[in-house]
Amino acid sequence: MKIMLIGFGLVGQGLLQLLHDKAESLQAEQGFTPKIVAVATGSRGILYHPDGLSIPALLAAKGNPAAYKLDAERDFASALELIQCKEADVVIEVTPTNLENPAKATAHCQAAIASKKHLITANKGPIAKHYNELMSAAKSAGVEIRFEATVMAGTPCIAMGRELLSGAKIHEARGIVNGTTNYILTQMESGLSYESALKQAQELGYAETDPTADVEGWDAAAKVLILLAAFFGKQAQLSDLSVTGITGISQADIENAKAAGERYKLIASVSPEGGSVKPMRLPLSDPLAQVSGATNAISFNTDVMGNISLIGKGAGAGETGFALLADLLTIHRKLF
Amino acid sequence: MKIMLIGFGLVGQGLLQLLHDKAESLQAEQGFTPKIVAVATGSRGILYHPDGLSIPALLAAKGNPAAYKLDAERDFASALELIQCKEADVVIEVTPTNLENPAKATAHCQAAIASKKHLITANKGPIAKHYNELMSAAKSAGVEIRFEATVMAGTPCIAMGRELLSGAKIHEARGIVNGTTNYILTQMESGLSYESALKQAQELGYAETDPTADVEGWDAAAKVLILLAAFFGKQAQLSDLSVTGITGISQADIENAKAAGERYKLIASVSPEGGSVKPMRLPLSDPLAQVSGATNAISFNTDVMGNISLIGKGAGAGETGFALLADLLTIHRKLF
Repeated sequence: MKIMLIGFGLVGQGLLQLLHDKAESLQAEQGFTPKIVAVATGSRGILYHPDGLSIPALLAAKGNPAAYKLDAERDFASALELIQCKEADVVIEVTPTNLENPAKATAHCQAAIASKKHLITANKGPIAKHYNELMSAAKSAGVEIRFEATVMAGTPCIAMGRELLSGAKIHEARGIVNGTTNYILTQMESGLSYESALKQAQELGYAETDPTADVEGWDAAAKVLILLAAFFGKQAQLSDLSVTGITGISQADIENAKAAGERYKLIASVSPEGGSVKPMRLPLSDPLAQVSGATNAISFNTDVMGNISLIGKGAGAGETGFALLADLLTIHRKLF
Repeated sequence: MKIMLIGFGLVGQGLLQLLHDKAESLQAEQGFTPKIVAVATGSRGILYHPDGLSIPALLAAKGNPAAYKLDAERDFASALELIQCKEADVVIEVTPTNLENPAKATAHCQAAIASKKHLITANKGPIAKHYNELMSAAKSAGVEIRFEATVMAGTPCIAMGRELLSGAKIHEARGIVNGTTNYILTQMESGLSYESALKQAQELGYAETDPTADVEGWDAAAKVLILLAAFFGKQAQLSDLSVTGITGISQADIENAKAAGERYKLIASVSPEGGSVKPMRLPLSDPLAQVSGATNAISFNTDVMGNISLIGKGAGAGETGFALLADLLTIHRKLF
């Protein structure tokens, strides 16, 4: 399977590391022998070789493939040109998410589909904003689009909702899809103030220096847009959603909930009617109430199966790279 | 997709009810238009029609298709002859599980594979006892074998371990795979004696009049054999497993665990080293400790993703029929 990697940050490197570490078992157990025929970075050049680039060499060169002196074609005006002009089975789009303006990443996706390459992406922008258009183009072109990595990293909530539960009607899905805020709420429950818990989350690398996107609920909201599209084919805008973060929750609120046998969780909800992000007090019997620390979870309410819940890690380069690998293997099973 | 249904008990009827209720959405959303070309019962005859039998008529006739006066070929010596002689895309084997002697069901499975039909089964016997042999025959014949329904009904633990996590190394999987015993333990924790809890489980239809298979751990052990095969390709016998049920657990044990902040659960474990079934005291922080009543759960410990847990219903005609439907849809996505 010939793969083009568009974007070469932590997630792309995470995938290559997995392909390197697991090369033997993937080949022996699943007959999966990927070739990375191209790596495109935004500002540091593009490498292409039809027989595949050396994965250890790419990992050694990390974010700067152009620096690596290897036998490769480099003469491309842009990643877009690379996608349009060269052969591959799959394009993996892992450039950084820009939710306000995903035009560039969307163009990569469209070019992949137009040139009849399967598309796998970890980029929230194109899926959140152009899902129906991309899906309909992919259907016409006879290619797959997979985007497990966009929500809950390698914990397979997208495949679960779209494939394993495709015979059921999903009435609603509720999730803890932002690990940072769940970590902060968990720490607050064990007595820390919001400020101390946030500081701890920043020290552990869970939260950014500017934590707004997490604590105000916008990261979760972007995932709500993707889940609405993935589970209900519903294209929405951030402005269509009711979004409340965790900054308004005091230690007193947490204590009151605790006294009532409940727990605050930042819940992302999607249903055919729409989506929201808001802190909710859940009884301890709710599977989501038991999810602590940076762990993520999703609970599907369905017609035939009632509630089905999935709990796992939702962030990390290896964990997100794993989602890309799972998508690759699904396409591989279908094609080969 | 042309389907032969071998066995027509509650699970087979559950599937037909789903196909009937969901006919419109399955066709509109997934282009899935199944035809039941044959139904075979053990002692009440066989019906076959190459253009498909009427699903409402079959449901009306329930377990006795031969009683239904419809235009069908009935002249078959056995289900085996039907499978061997007539065309279909998929054989669904849902005759009753006989773990001691699964020869008849295994012959159905082998005949399906030999005649190049995909195989879906809810029957634990052939998978627990002849997994590797069946898989290797299926590989040679170029057909699929799916058996989601054999463990945790429609909660997709098999697809999760074999497909969604196929890029990971599963170190161990631990599950609550018997709802009856979990219901009894949950009721004992709220103060009931073992005897009263068992009686309640029997009244609710969770437990059989002779509850031995559940409470002594043998139902869970059969599922351990299947999980060992499915996740590790390891063929074991019941006698290879260490199996302990819940009959030795007293109310005092339950109270002691509770006082220590723990809960008793009947845990089925599988790893590359082997499998076991035994009551274990779990800390409340363990996702499995939170699974109450007749609900099932499985927790995978993996290399890349750490722990991933799946919680859902594990029994019921509709829920088990749903597993068959999910397997049908997976094959449909692959083929069409």
